[in-house]
Amino acid sequence: MTQAAGDPSDAGIIATSSSPHAQVVPVPIGRVTIGDGFWKPWMEANRTKGIPALLAQLEEHGVVDNFRLVSGRKKGERQGPVFTDSDLYKWMEGAALVLQSTDDAALKKSLHSIIDDVAAAQREDGYLNTFFTGELAGQRFRNLGSEHELYCAGHLFQAAVAHYRATGERTLLNVATRYADFMAANMGAGKIEQPDGHPEVEMALIELYRVTGKKDYLDLAGFYLKKQSYGENGQISGHAVRAAYLVAGAADYYSETGDSKARQAAEALWSDMATGRVYITGGLGARHEGEAIGERYELPNESAYAETCAAIANAMWNFRMLGNSGDAKYADMMERAFYNNVLSGISLDTTHWFYVNPLACFRDYQRSPWFGCTCCPTNAVRTLAAIPGYMYGVSDDAVWVHMYDSSAMDWRLGDGRKVKLEQKTRYPWDGRVEIAVSPANASEFELRLRVPGWCRSASCKVNGKAVKLEAKPGSYLAIRREWAPGDRVTLDLKMSVEMMASDPRVRTNLGKAAVQRGPLVYCFESTDNPEVDLAGVRLSGGSFTAKFVPDLLGGVVTLTGKGEQPSGGGQGPLYRPVDVDRRLPMTRVTLVGIPAYAWANRGNSQMIIWAPYKP
Amino acid sequence: MTQAAGDPSDAGIIATSSSPHAQVVPVPIGRVTIGDGFWKPWMEANRTKGIPALLAQLEEHGVVDNFRLVSGRKKGERQGPVFTDSDLYKWMEGAALVLQSTDDAALKKSLHSIIDDVAAAQREDGYLNTFFTGELAGQRFRNLGSEHELYCAGHLFQAAVAHYRATGERTLLNVATRYADFMAANMGAGKIEQPDGHPEVEMALIELYRVTGKKDYLDLAGFYLKKQSYGENGQISGHAVRAAYLVAGAADYYSETGDSKARQAAEALWSDMATGRVYITGGLGARHEGEAIGERYELPNESAYAETCAAIANAMWNFRMLGNSGDAKYADMMERAFYNNVLSGISLDTTHWFYVNPLACFRDYQRSPWFGCTCCPTNAVRTLAAIPGYMYGVSDDAVWVHMYDSSAMDWRLGDGRKVKLEQKTRYPWDGRVEIAVSPANASEFELRLRVPGWCRSASCKVNGKAVKLEAKPGSYLAIRREWAPGDRVTLDLKMSVEMMASDPRVRTNLGKAAVQRGPLVYCFESTDNPEVDLAGVRLSGGSFTAKFVPDLLGGVVTLTGKGEQPSGGGQGPLYRPVDVDRRLPMTRVTLVGIPAYAWANRGNSQMIIWAPYKP
Repeated sequence: MTQAAGDPSDAGIIATSSSPHAQVVPVPIGRVTIGDGFWKPWMEANRTKGIPALLAQLEEHGVVDNFRLVSGRKKGERQGPVFTDSDLYKWMEGAALVLQSTDDAALKKSLHSIIDDVAAAQREDGYLNTFFTGELAGQRFRNLGSEHELYCAGHLFQAAVAHYRATGERTLLNVATRYADFMAANMGAGKIEQPDGHPEVEMALIELYRVTGKKDYLDLAGFYLKKQSYGENGQISGHAVRAAYLVAGAADYYSETGDSKARQAAEALWSDMATGRVYITGGLGARHEGEAIGERYELPNESAYAETCAAIANAMWNFRMLGNSGDAKYADMMERAFYNNVLSGISLDTTHWFYVNPLACFRDYQRSPWFGCTCCPTNAVRTLAAIPGYMYGVSDDAVWVHMYDSSAMDWRLGDGRKVKLEQKTRYPWDGRVEIAVSPANASEFELRLRVPGWCRSASCKVNGKAVKLEAKPGSYLAIRREWAPGDRVTLDLKMSVEMMASDPRVRTNLGKAAVQRGPLVYCFESTDNPEVDLAGVRLSGGSFTAKFVPDLLGGVVTLTGKGEQPSGGGQGPLYRPVDVDRRLPMTRVTLVGIPAYAWANRGNSQMIIWAPYKP
Repeated sequence: MTQAAGDPSDAGIIATSSSPHAQVVPVPIGRVTIGDGFWKPWMEANRTKGIPALLAQLEEHGVVDNFRLVSGRKKGERQGPVFTDSDLYKWMEGAALVLQSTDDAALKKSLHSIIDDVAAAQREDGYLNTFFTGELAGQRFRNLGSEHELYCAGHLFQAAVAHYRATGERTLLNVATRYADFMAANMGAGKIEQPDGHPEVEMALIELYRVTGKKDYLDLAGFYLKKQSYGENGQISGHAVRAAYLVAGAADYYSETGDSKARQAAEALWSDMATGRVYITGGLGARHEGEAIGERYELPNESAYAETCAAIANAMWNFRMLGNSGDAKYADMMERAFYNNVLSGISLDTTHWFYVNPLACFRDYQRSPWFGCTCCPTNAVRTLAAIPGYMYGVSDDAVWVHMYDSSAMDWRLGDGRKVKLEQKTRYPWDGRVEIAVSPANASEFELRLRVPGWCRSASCKVNGKAVKLEAKPGSYLAIRREWAPGDRVTLDLKMSVEMMASDPRVRTNLGKAAVQRGPLVYCFESTDNPEVDLAGVRLSGGSFTAKFVPDLLGGVVTLTGKGEQPSGGGQGPLYRPVDVDRRLPMTRVTLVGIPAYAWANRGNSQMIIWAPYKP
């Protein structure tokens, strides 16, 4: 039932092989070795630059000191917003996730020092929150709707689980369970019954349950989930991060309980999101006001909110749905969010951050090293560290490849048979993937290779021989055979440049196209297009040429194509009959696109993703 | 030099034949008789319903009582925002303008009673503002940037001038001049030098100067105009109403002084507005925040502000520019604003009002009888009453027809020669205009007939014989001949249904068209299109059929054409390759358009003006 008795490093980033309703569970981060490919520079920068820089910021802004004030190790005034404990916890989770894949002694030392400060701030009864101390100690749990105590607790629990899985040490886990026990004793039906104003703790309590086997935690998560009206009307709305965390928690709850209402709600909300309320970048949140998801098809580009945290939440949500169903549509959405909106939130050196990720920009807008509300940077560092955990999955007699990157996996099927995969690919720059499959002993099982939804045509060979299976876009190609050590699989995902249109009800994108290649949405940035008027240019409808440029932005494929723009900076009256409009002189221009995630890494610029398209 | 010595009813709504730099001056309202045509029902409703209903609202909300409190005629607390005196003044101006064209004894009585209340509230020193009395009496003029004292004073002056021109009585004019004298004594260079936070008083002071000949008023207007940075960078921005009132004041200032800086500023700002910051409806103000004009080409439809007052201000600005230049482009803009954005602010029965005039609506949105800030309703009643004053103009040896409607004009050229025009037309439903020209004595002068910018082809006959002059769109067709009583002119303005495109930099309208016929912008309202998904429909590019429907919305020409929309409420993923998008099944639908001004008169509805257009 639980991992408590086993090796903690055997668990994936969520769920375990013992989650009874999970169809596919993740391979632990520690069992995936990232090779030389797309993600390695991001993860290395995160470990060596982003995480240290962010800790320095957290120290500078008093977020760590807040804990030292509570324990009496320091004197002074608490700093930062009510929820800022969660920022440190997310940093701790990120550090712990790094330690699951890399033995970084300096990082371990610095994490353990922080854990010591956190543990020292825990109250005797188990409560732990730096805001409700001193004069405010009597105000605990007074307003769970807006004061984020549950949210902070959740991030503590997730950090504790990550640390335990990384090291097997229970120092932080004990802090978490003491607090969770205190919560379970005081909250829930017949006790403090306020609903959770910022969902997060639901996922965290369930993860704590998975680690400890203590059903109180699962039940308290269930209490909060049922307090929310998620899925009542099947429409996702409100604060994007909260909405996605809530339904991610519901998906976790289903995986442990089989609660059909939770699953149905998660599916209904997913459909509503995926068919009408998500950006092409996987971003959620149309509105700055309330950081909120908008009406169906309300997806403005320049004024998009698309908070980095919301894209992370979207990926987390989809990964859980993928685990519950094995349906590749969730992997598509997760990949869309990771490559486009999550990464756009992070500078190439992982030291500067976007909170808001517009899909068009005509003003000076640059990433910052810190925010007063710094949720996104800390969320991003934990997410980069978790990437290996999203790549592979296992079920009873199948191994799944969800995301492609050069990497090695050394793990076991759900039924215990050991298998290694070694993957070589230049994905997402190229659609060719080579996988060496090495079971410990020759044995029949399935290799399930994701054929992304963006891929119109895929082919696969095993040991040089074509696999005669239909590779339907947005599915897993399931190759069942007796696998033997040394088997080699070659997957060719045809990676064309696609001009993408929106559902016409996305009114802001009417008549426009976005350029996509593989999982990457492209943008046109003024840096690469100094002669182009990005506010007036139209794509001419010809083809784009892809070229890998190693020295650009850490190495990216650029796309070069043709457009046209009004001559002389625009002529004619502001409004004119369409026949007059068609006769106005246009100038042909060359357009150079880069992956949208990489924009704003070279100083101030203008940027568009959607451009008028003339077929 | 001034009208002070002449018949006050000889002056038009602005300027006079003695404004030295005006090229064309308006014909007085009292010299224009509105016939059975487009404007008569609006003006009659305004006189018999709108004006009484609004006075009842002003009484109910304490706006009139505020004056009675100051004079001691009533006891109680002042009601409404700091600037609400101006609402009563605008109502008074509206009533006075009605009296210029209609001898309405009941209205005159009610206006005179209000004038008595206003006059009784004037302080001994001439000051008059119901906010800065009692405890606040010592705070006068403490903050001209935000407290609207000048704005209120300006509307008082305009009401006073209108009343004087209507009746020849000086009761309200004396109140105005006493206050203006007090202001001139206390404000200006070397005195109170604060700039004017909400321009309005500039136009009003200049009109007061035109009536009284007192140069102090013109100079004070000049002081405020020069305090503003209008035109410094040639870009119009900020609060739309304030911006347009300011530059309208600059245009007035030029007409009296020939100040070249004022004229250049007004022209530069106009070009910036007309080429990049005005809605197709003539509306100004893209943003709710700050009620502000946006960046160039920032013209969102659903979230448009396009305040009714701003469209009125735009018309007032353009009318002044037209007077200074005789350039028909200003008449085009004025007409665009009147027919589309000003009228959309008014219910057909003139008792309900829009403050904000979106160009697309997908939520419940209805006109209101009152607003906490009720500037728009009172502005609209004075504007409807002033319409006859915008129709005709005269210069030394020409008579100008700016706007077409069945009407008669009995006035004189600038050089004193008397002439009558009698105009018969169904404009804006039909482009045929018949004008009988009757000079008192046969004499050579020009009849200048406006050929609107929307009209691609016009022809003209005099006494049945074709006029061999090029009728260039957006110009005045100047027919110089010896006119004799009984001469008949027939102007045929070809009125086609035009599919209008935007400059491509208006990103929200890319790939879309708006349907226009004559001066009227059309909309599609769900009331007439119950089977159409207005959020997803595209115009098919075929022709629209015009039909006059007498029983609809007071009698309008509807336009019926074809469109298509995604079958079954939309299919396919939210984002799809353009070739897939093109193959998705569409259903053909019939679309019925009505003039955009007439929407929202039949209960809640959805509405679009711009729709995707497939040529």
